Amino acid sequence: MFFSTPKSDEFVVRLRTPVEQQYVALLTDMVNRLGGKLSSIQEAGLAEGELAWEAVFTIADAEQAAEIAESLRQLPGVALLWAEEQTFALHRGGKLEVISKRPLRTTAELSMVYTPGVAKICRRIYAEPQASLTYTIRQNTVAVISDGSAVLGLGNIGPTAALPVMEGKCVLLKTFAGVDAFPICLDTQEIDELVKACVWLAPNFGGINLEDISSPRCVELEERLIAELEIPVFHDDQHGTAVVVLAALENALKIVAKKLNNIRVAVSGAGAAGAAVTKLLLSLGCRQIVVCDRGGILNRRRRLDGNPVKQWLIEHTNPEQIAGSLSDAMRGADVFIGVSGPDLLTVEDIKQMARDAVVFALANPDPEIRPEAAATYARVVATGRSDYPNQINNVLCFPGLFRGLLDIRARRVTEAMKCAAAKAIASVIPESELRPDYIVPNVFNPKVAPAVAAAVKKAAVEQTPV
Amino acid sequence: MFFSTPKSDEFVVRLRTPVEQQYVALLTDMVNRLGGKLSSIQEAGLAEGELAWEAVFTIADAEQAAEIAESLRQLPGVALLWAEEQTFALHRGGKLEVISKRPLRTTAELSMVYTPGVAKICRRIYAEPQASLTYTIRQNTVAVISDGSAVLGLGNIGPTAALPVMEGKCVLLKTFAGVDAFPICLDTQEIDELVKACVWLAPNFGGINLEDISSPRCVELEERLIAELEIPVFHDDQHGTAVVVLAALENALKIVAKKLNNIRVAVSGAGAAGAAVTKLLLSLGCRQIVVCDRGGILNRRRRLDGNPVKQWLIEHTNPEQIAGSLSDAMRGADVFIGVSGPDLLTVEDIKQMARDAVVFALANPDPEIRPEAAATYARVVATGRSDYPNQINNVLCFPGLFRGLLDIRARRVTEAMKCAAAKAIASVIPESELRPDYIVPNVFNPKVAPAVAAAVKKAAVEQTPV
Repeated sequence: MFFSTPKSDEFVVRLRTPVEQQYVALLTDMVNRLGGKLSSIQEAGLAEGELAWEAVFTIADAEQAAEIAESLRQLPGVALLWAEEQTFALHRGGKLEVISKRPLRTTAELSMVYTPGVAKICRRIYAEPQASLTYTIRQNTVAVISDGSAVLGLGNIGPTAALPVMEGKCVLLKTFAGVDAFPICLDTQEIDELVKACVWLAPNFGGINLEDISSPRCVELEERLIAELEIPVFHDDQHGTAVVVLAALENALKIVAKKLNNIRVAVSGAGAAGAAVTKLLLSLGCRQIVVCDRGGILNRRRRLDGNPVKQWLIEHTNPEQIAGSLSDAMRGADVFIGVSGPDLLTVEDIKQMARDAVVFALANPDPEIRPEAAATYARVVATGRSDYPNQINNVLCFPGLFRGLLDIRARRVTEAMKCAAAKAIASVIPESELRPDYIVPNVFNPKVAPAVAAAVKKAAVEQTPV
Repeated sequence: MFFSTPKSDEFVVRLRTPVEQQYVALLTDMVNRLGGKLSSIQEAGLAEGELAWEAVFTIADAEQAAEIAESLRQLPGVALLWAEEQTFALHRGGKLEVISKRPLRTTAELSMVYTPGVAKICRRIYAEPQASLTYTIRQNTVAVISDGSAVLGLGNIGPTAALPVMEGKCVLLKTFAGVDAFPICLDTQEIDELVKACVWLAPNFGGINLEDISSPRCVELEERLIAELEIPVFHDDQHGTAVVVLAALENALKIVAKKLNNIRVAVSGAGAAGAAVTKLLLSLGCRQIVVCDRGGILNRRRRLDGNPVKQWLIEHTNPEQIAGSLSDAMRGADVFIGVSGPDLLTVEDIKQMARDAVVFALANPDPEIRPEAAATYARVVATGRSDYPNQINNVLCFPGLFRGLLDIRARRVTEAMKCAAAKAIASVIPESELRPDYIVPNVFNPKVAPAVAAAVKKAAVEQTPV
């Protein structure tokens, strides 16, 4: 296996210089002298009679960056507007834009797009509400909704700080599947209020993607919204993860020549993602699943604080009622699925697994075990990271899933759709190309989203008569 | 004065033909034969091995359109996908698109736009919430919010049917001022719930434009939101109308050589718009204002149903406490401002006005009096219609206003900003060019929005020390 490490971040400065003078050579010289490497420089428009330039350069560390910024600031005639890491520079002004689909150039066009012409469309929708799916953005628009209660691995950082993640999700929906998506970070964390907010917002959307909402609240929220709304509601952290894990597992089992209904699975993490993965595996006939939380293996002797998600897991997993720690669960397991926290496993734990073990260590950014370490004894290793092979990334599922849902105006996401999506992702890699370090397609593989969308549509059609 | 009439709507068909054959000539022939005029035809992409064409043609009436559609349907090999008026065709799929500001092409970019890189931005905003105005879409994004309770002249058609209007408003904000705007039609009409919804949504936006909410609820809603939120809230039907009326009045008074503090004004319509116009005029020293509702002139002897907007008007207008009908209010008035309903005035009413009368008959789509009729006695006539001169259109105000508010990260819309915006709109027409049929700039005049934005910013700066 090949393991790359992330490159050092790049640094971007925006500065303004008088138009009359040649500053590019000056800048390049200065950056080089201080040990930075200029990788691009371009005009960023004219403002108040002065040219703005945007320069990107590679730097060794934050100290060097500060030194370069300070020197730029000292250059006569140069105004340093900002200087920061490329990740920050890419976020300036936000990541999304709302544009008109068609140019608006004449009074005739204005009178159709807005009053008085638009009144015809309103009247039609008033008479026939389903027409909103033809004549408004609903047809192709999804809300990416969060309350900021469990954002990435950062915890409860609230709605304002969560917005960049939701924007990013919208970028992915558009880029990979042409779905228009808008981020909605709600400034409340009461379940009743979140339900109300989503119900009030529903007329604008063809679907809702719930995101980064803490467990077990997210499970109740999703269930209530599914009951109340007539558009599909999908909590990606649960079901998106479950679908991609299933896709990866399907291909991993081909490599090790085992069957889903025969394997022993150890799951680390009894939150919403762990529960969703478990449910999907159970629904496909995988019976020998043991789930662990921070307190060890879940079984009927464990005392719980009324957490309904864990209660459900206790009732439906661990048929042999084994007890103990995560290490005990690993003994003899064919598959490990970690959706928990960093460094919970040792190499010794992997060694105790069955032969040809499969290890999905998905905690982000730091997995349950370093993939290099897991690979000493496991046959197939996957993580959630883009800088290792076999990235189990929800991006493989949700864009194509929503593409399919919107295309058929689906009102629900069904179990059949999720299974079909997983099979579609897995099938993008021909069996002849499967390798232990190539069990899931790359997120930029252009075949993935169309395959998922087609599978979802097919699953919906097949289910309609039931 | 020149009065044009609206052209008959055009008709658009989308049809699919096999790629192998030449269908354009066939289509053109057929449409011509049936009396239609083909005005454009273009490929609309390949679908399932067949070419889709979109053809636009001018038709005399709906009957001819139906005949043409039927004949197209009969053409061998042709599948007619849809056939409808251009206004409907322009609304297919909605009018807005949410796009990524930057292309997403590589794993390196993905890891900045989404996890793990985006976590840096979240952490920064969590530590310093104001950073959300730099690194998220808030900076340039406005919510266009309605409950669908008073949409155009259509009444309470609800949120789903209101969506095309809000989408249109978003198109205008982007087209005229580069403001990203997203439509939010809320499925509740309880004031308390609307307040909650807006408060919960606020983290995503740099401003809120309220729209098409019935009076007097809209006044209370706006007041409560202004008190609760730290982003500007602007109910366009009130203040946008008031600003553009003030701009037009300023130029009209130049033509008739009268002063604002000297004129008698008759206002028809005691809803939110009438009240906002009246308040703005009062704040500028215009004292002789008489407001009429359906029951006639508002004065202290009128019994009301507890409507707080009308109560306010009664307490602040009609200093001479005159009574009677709208016709009585018109006698001797220098200016009529109608924000009410169709055909409430007669030519006789106009004749009773003072010399050089100014008539703004803004009811939409049918004004309080036909402008041709008003022009027999009035010196300056304006309407809300795009097919007559002097269109008093809110589009002249709200895009530039929000541009200015966002640029300075304003937390409030002040009276000074509204007055400055009105003066800016009026000043776009040089005094030398003012004519009775040219008192407001065309909505497509590119000078308007930048002038309004600059005026709003200047007014904010001047007010800061107070």
